[in-house]
Amino acid sequence: MTQVEDAKKGHITEEAKKIAEQEKINIDKLIQRIAEGKIVIPKNIGRTTKPCGIGEGLSTKINANIGSSSKMEDIDIEIKKAKVCEEYGADALMDLSTGSKLKEFRKRIIENVDIPIGTVPIYEAGVEAQNRDGSVINMSEDDIFKAIENQAKEGVDFMTLHCGINKDVVEKLQKSNRMMGIVSRGGTFLSSWILHNERENPLYKNYDYILELAYEYDITLSLGDGLRPGCLSDATDVPQIQELVTLGTLVKRAQESNVQVMVEGPGHVPLDQIAANMKIEKTLCNGAPFYVLGPIVTDLAPGYDHITSAIGGAIAAHSGADFLCYVTPAEHLAIPSLEDVKEGIIASKIAAQSADVALGLPNAWKKEKAMATARKNFDWDRQFELAFDSEKPKKYRKSCPVEDDKMCSMCGEYCAIRIAENDFTKKN
Amino acid sequence: MTQVEDAKKGHITEEAKKIAEQEKINIDKLIQRIAEGKIVIPKNIGRTTKPCGIGEGLSTKINANIGSSSKMEDIDIEIKKAKVCEEYGADALMDLSTGSKLKEFRKRIIENVDIPIGTVPIYEAGVEAQNRDGSVINMSEDDIFKAIENQAKEGVDFMTLHCGINKDVVEKLQKSNRMMGIVSRGGTFLSSWILHNERENPLYKNYDYILELAYEYDITLSLGDGLRPGCLSDATDVPQIQELVTLGTLVKRAQESNVQVMVEGPGHVPLDQIAANMKIEKTLCNGAPFYVLGPIVTDLAPGYDHITSAIGGAIAAHSGADFLCYVTPAEHLAIPSLEDVKEGIIASKIAAQSADVALGLPNAWKKEKAMATARKNFDWDRQFELAFDSEKPKKYRKSCPVEDDKMCSMCGEYCAIRIAENDFTKKN
Repeated sequence: MTQVEDAKKGHITEEAKKIAEQEKINIDKLIQRIAEGKIVIPKNIGRTTKPCGIGEGLSTKINANIGSSSKMEDIDIEIKKAKVCEEYGADALMDLSTGSKLKEFRKRIIENVDIPIGTVPIYEAGVEAQNRDGSVINMSEDDIFKAIENQAKEGVDFMTLHCGINKDVVEKLQKSNRMMGIVSRGGTFLSSWILHNERENPLYKNYDYILELAYEYDITLSLGDGLRPGCLSDATDVPQIQELVTLGTLVKRAQESNVQVMVEGPGHVPLDQIAANMKIEKTLCNGAPFYVLGPIVTDLAPGYDHITSAIGGAIAAHSGADFLCYVTPAEHLAIPSLEDVKEGIIASKIAAQSADVALGLPNAWKKEKAMATARKNFDWDRQFELAFDSEKPKKYRKSCPVEDDKMCSMCGEYCAIRIAENDFTKKN
Repeated sequence: MTQVEDAKKGHITEEAKKIAEQEKINIDKLIQRIAEGKIVIPKNIGRTTKPCGIGEGLSTKINANIGSSSKMEDIDIEIKKAKVCEEYGADALMDLSTGSKLKEFRKRIIENVDIPIGTVPIYEAGVEAQNRDGSVINMSEDDIFKAIENQAKEGVDFMTLHCGINKDVVEKLQKSNRMMGIVSRGGTFLSSWILHNERENPLYKNYDYILELAYEYDITLSLGDGLRPGCLSDATDVPQIQELVTLGTLVKRAQESNVQVMVEGPGHVPLDQIAANMKIEKTLCNGAPFYVLGPIVTDLAPGYDHITSAIGGAIAAHSGADFLCYVTPAEHLAIPSLEDVKEGIIASKIAAQSADVALGLPNAWKKEKAMATARKNFDWDRQFELAFDSEKPKKYRKSCPVEDDKMCSMCGEYCAIRIAENDFTKKN
């Protein structure tokens, strides 16, 4: 049985029980939301993972993408990245490998982490077709479904499937006035396939078969947004929303089939459009969790897209997004290094926490209050312990030593907290 | 004559003319807003600076803080920081030196940059009192006003003056339930002074004299928020708003005296409270420009407060803030290094641009469209040119070389833009 089927029957799974405890949410409310499709718990029946609930009323979760490319294929580095992701608090991990050894990479990554693992099976099918027949448009339907089935058997917990890019959507895209066309890798594989083979998207046409496979392994479907905007000018345009409308119909079919499902979203979005994007996903997709990439709120900062995404992600999560895909400083430029992965996670944790605190989640406020207490008490060790990254602030403090704990090199003896300590700081 | 007096008389100053051209704003509208106190142009009559307009309808401006502390006093490094600030696009610079050679530092910094310079004169008075009589509470009123007058003569363009911390506000603070008390350095100098000397704040009591000095040199007053919250729990509390009410009355007196004035704001604020904070400043302070520090939206990221502030700053600027004070990764930990200063500026530029684009400013959109065009054309040099920082993205691209321009190491030959180029990307 899938998590959603259990919930519909009122069964409390082990995972749901743990999530209710961690998140301090009433178990009946949690079960109801899982039953309604508003919360998902990505976990393949063949795998044991740290329970991770994504959706309405739960803390915002973050995902980190790792994986090889044809230009950079080093399994040891990718395993190290996976470990860094877990260490710094990623809630889930996607292996987006497109190098020639992608199957081996996936296997090793799955073995090495305890958090839910996601993939984009079309990459495997596309890379195989490219290596075998010279182009991704030579994928057969069989290539695609074999990749999905094999990955389900291997224990993948959630899969990005671009089921919404159908012929109709592709036609609308060609007639549209988009600047950047398609910027989703999976999206281009399928759009080009549709166009050159003059056939319907196999993931759309055979969606019932996908639902069967997903049901069998309790794979959480993550319906991909192949037409997400690639620059601010393209945000919230007809192709993007048309695809979302299609995804909404597919969400409904998944929910009716007791398959867990979430929806992926933009992308590059001016900050005044973010809240509307979150709202419309919830209305069109029947409350399914929204999994967003960024959104990036300006394109002028290559090298710093962890920051442009932290801004967009914080606003998105505050307006209804449930799951943030991290973006690293290397985005748009290169495959991320170990250090970039860490930077991406911290930025995404900041976005998630700032939204959770604004939404009034008790766990989020508890941490904020603990940090404020540590600061006013000049308890540096506790501050480092509470920080998303303990090492960096420790290094700063050591970089310019001061003679006592009640100051730092910024203000020296003129520290406001030090001066005000006896007169104005609340004791506790 | 001050800029505001000129505007009230309908005179178009050289600075106003240049600002109207740069910002593509109708000159009459600009002059009217200067006359109404909604826009300021910080520029001491004794100094020539790059014209910088701050306020309603103009692009969001950013300020960088530099300066020595008693623990780190190296004039060459501070000059280098000042140069970096100009190079990466800071619109203004504050010298917050508190080291023993602060006068020399200020002189050298003023000589070395062309953007408006701000200071906090109470630091000079406090440091002198500390060195002379062992404590900042031994400042005399004369110390304070001498510092203001000397700095005005030296060419300082805007000054933070904590005029709103009066006895009433300090009493309310002592009765309040604040966790962090006072975290503003200038704020503690004055609050402690008031408490220990049992006298009214000289900057409040002698505000008319301040207005006279400001008028004489056309100093833009930046009314300091001595009671800004120091943690999320203290945000938007009674002491903060009480001080803002007082500042509103002082704004009105400045505007009536033909003195340019802006107001400083928080601080540490949960993101759902930011828009309200911006709105209330505009209503209580008669539309005066709002100059915010951060706001920081979570306290859990020491070492990354440039990111927590970029989130808060973007939302603030989109909701009405006009001037963002940068925050560096070293905030709360140490005096920032040269690299920290650069990081702080880039993060702040990102926040400002993302707000400006969301507000529909044509200059902001023009840059976004240019970047999107460069990206779809794989024009890397143009991308680097348009980026806030050209060097970092160049380094990324070089870090993992690829064989042709139409890919990067992230996706290799599976680049979406490359695959979609012929089918879906708009030509131009």
